[in-house]
Amino acid sequence: MTDPEEHEPVSRPLASGEVGLVAPQDFTCPGPFTFKSGQVLPGFTLRYETYGQLNAARDNAILVCHALSGDHHCAGVHAADDRKPGWWNNLIGPGKAVDTRRFFVVCANVLGGCVGSSGPSSVNPETGRPYGISFPFVTILDMVRAQKLLLDHLGVTALHATLGGSMGGMQALLFAIEFPAYTRRVLAMATTARESAQAIAFNEVGRQAIMQDPDWNHGDYPKGGGPRVGLAIARMMAHITYVSDASMDRKFGRRKKTTADGESYTFDVQFEVEGYLRHQGQTFINRFDANSYLYITRALDQFDLAHAYGSLAAAFAPVQAESLVVGFTSDWLFPPEQNRQIALALLRAGKRASYAELATDLGHDSFLLESEELYTLIRGFLERSHTPAVDFSI
Amino acid sequence: MTDPEEHEPVSRPLASGEVGLVAPQDFTCPGPFTFKSGQVLPGFTLRYETYGQLNAARDNAILVCHALSGDHHCAGVHAADDRKPGWWNNLIGPGKAVDTRRFFVVCANVLGGCVGSSGPSSVNPETGRPYGISFPFVTILDMVRAQKLLLDHLGVTALHATLGGSMGGMQALLFAIEFPAYTRRVLAMATTARESAQAIAFNEVGRQAIMQDPDWNHGDYPKGGGPRVGLAIARMMAHITYVSDASMDRKFGRRKKTTADGESYTFDVQFEVEGYLRHQGQTFINRFDANSYLYITRALDQFDLAHAYGSLAAAFAPVQAESLVVGFTSDWLFPPEQNRQIALALLRAGKRASYAELATDLGHDSFLLESEELYTLIRGFLERSHTPAVDFSI
Repeated sequence: MTDPEEHEPVSRPLASGEVGLVAPQDFTCPGPFTFKSGQVLPGFTLRYETYGQLNAARDNAILVCHALSGDHHCAGVHAADDRKPGWWNNLIGPGKAVDTRRFFVVCANVLGGCVGSSGPSSVNPETGRPYGISFPFVTILDMVRAQKLLLDHLGVTALHATLGGSMGGMQALLFAIEFPAYTRRVLAMATTARESAQAIAFNEVGRQAIMQDPDWNHGDYPKGGGPRVGLAIARMMAHITYVSDASMDRKFGRRKKTTADGESYTFDVQFEVEGYLRHQGQTFINRFDANSYLYITRALDQFDLAHAYGSLAAAFAPVQAESLVVGFTSDWLFPPEQNRQIALALLRAGKRASYAELATDLGHDSFLLESEELYTLIRGFLERSHTPAVDFSI
Repeated sequence: MTDPEEHEPVSRPLASGEVGLVAPQDFTCPGPFTFKSGQVLPGFTLRYETYGQLNAARDNAILVCHALSGDHHCAGVHAADDRKPGWWNNLIGPGKAVDTRRFFVVCANVLGGCVGSSGPSSVNPETGRPYGISFPFVTILDMVRAQKLLLDHLGVTALHATLGGSMGGMQALLFAIEFPAYTRRVLAMATTARESAQAIAFNEVGRQAIMQDPDWNHGDYPKGGGPRVGLAIARMMAHITYVSDASMDRKFGRRKKTTADGESYTFDVQFEVEGYLRHQGQTFINRFDANSYLYITRALDQFDLAHAYGSLAAAFAPVQAESLVVGFTSDWLFPPEQNRQIALALLRAGKRASYAELATDLGHDSFLLESEELYTLIRGFLERSHTPAVDFSI
């Protein structure tokens, strides 16, 4: 157990209410770490950031879990002139809905990721080259167990909450299932207890785009190289599933890039939405590893609480946390109904659970976008007093 | 004008109610043919099939227009032991909803296609090699004008109806706009007067998968070669948009291919839906040309009646046909609302138009699937007596 002071972010307030300057840190677990698959890694590293201070009771921590293409950098900036803060900077900070004056916020790049944590792009010490697809298969459970080791290392004795959207929501739920006494609140958004066939199908097309790219080379490629074309295609397609028809129509409609009569006969970019998608693909390949994309989408597809525990009721039986599940009306990747089912199963299992459905037209990514309605819900859920479970049995 | 007897299909009834054996024919227009882009082709060929007989008045023809990946072979078989009949064989035949005892049905592979009609895979006589992307850009209007030349060649003096779903619906509508006196009925299904940004986005990802495949080689590849990987990826993704979440869940759910504990840790096919999609991609590349895919998706994206004619009202002003527009509740590619808008605009323009919305959970492809409800609607629309427009002005 490490003194929490050691992990205090190097922070200076850039502006009132901002987390400010943060430095990512690395937690190296000596291991060995046994994956759900049975494969073993001698040890692993998680890159993480923390904001706020762990209290004396060491129980004010909030674990933020990121989605497929997210990372540990969810708030603050890495340099004073850093123009792009962390991905959930609107939500997290002093006085914000996730108030870093009250809470000790932890966010780690997932196991299998490519932003500092151990994953297929990490160097295998035995070969001196990236693991590639010889890296052990990763499940959501493996991600959660690795994060628990990080929290132990940070000295957190209980989680005030776990919080995440999409794949982050899966991790948040699994925390409450696997570490019930440790996890007091779960806030899961735009998530699912198991993906539909359509969601698996989209992930599979992305994987095929990567694996059929000759530069994939069975996962064996140098760092920064690899199937850039396939990864860009996968990202372009996936991006469509993160937004909605309505939001794309509002943002781009049928507006054209060409200024003439708008009828240029070419396969170059014509519609603004095409240029936008190509940009999404191109920026993604500079920050993400194709093998990590394969691993993490597989983890998403494999996640199935009912299958893993026998039933949703059995999965949720041990949960002690209070939970809030949030669905978004325009989310067609993990639709409201799949979120509602989670809350319903928790209620049936006798747990304190709520479901809130927010009307948005921004699609799956609604959970990432600033929203007074959502942020008020999150603050209310995180700051209400915790009602410990009372045992009515004699 | 050619004697219609010449075009009588070589048919023998394989079974009662079946079109039976048919032979595709080629119509070669000597040209020159000027495309909407201004580009000119010396001449072109359309491959087509006909079923039934043209009547003495030469006005009982029904033009069937196919969708993106369809072709001219919509009914009957090409050999007695042909196990797979034309794509709309359930709909078209003696005594069927499109009754070939009453109607002379014509269906042609579109201009720009790759199943016998002139398109980018056709040989450029000047070079002796496939045109590739030097083939003129094709629009829905070009497809329609080429088909009109075929109908003239067949001696059809008026169309009893044009009929099509998806891109076929676009052609059917455009026939009534461009050849108003010629077109008596329009039946357009699962279509749109212009695609949404999301539909353009999916097409663009497919085009990028093709054009970023090194084997595309700027469209210059030998027949049968080319960007097979990219085309398969495009098809896999597009296929998801043709069906629905519900239908995929019913057909595949999360069923796995593996027989063991269902937790095989591999990037091979695990879920049945993955194997199905890969099969879709693989069969498509053996029958479709990648450049045609680029051309036809561009034609779909460019189609915009309001933009082309100033407004939907202006587009529909000349229409004399009666029309029936059919939307399907689970179609999320060209949703019901976009079909409803077409009928509404026709009604506002003072035309005889109806809209029918069918409740299905089969997605966009609902128009292709056998349905008593749909077929009854189609028969009723095609067989009701035509009410010619009456001029009430003095």
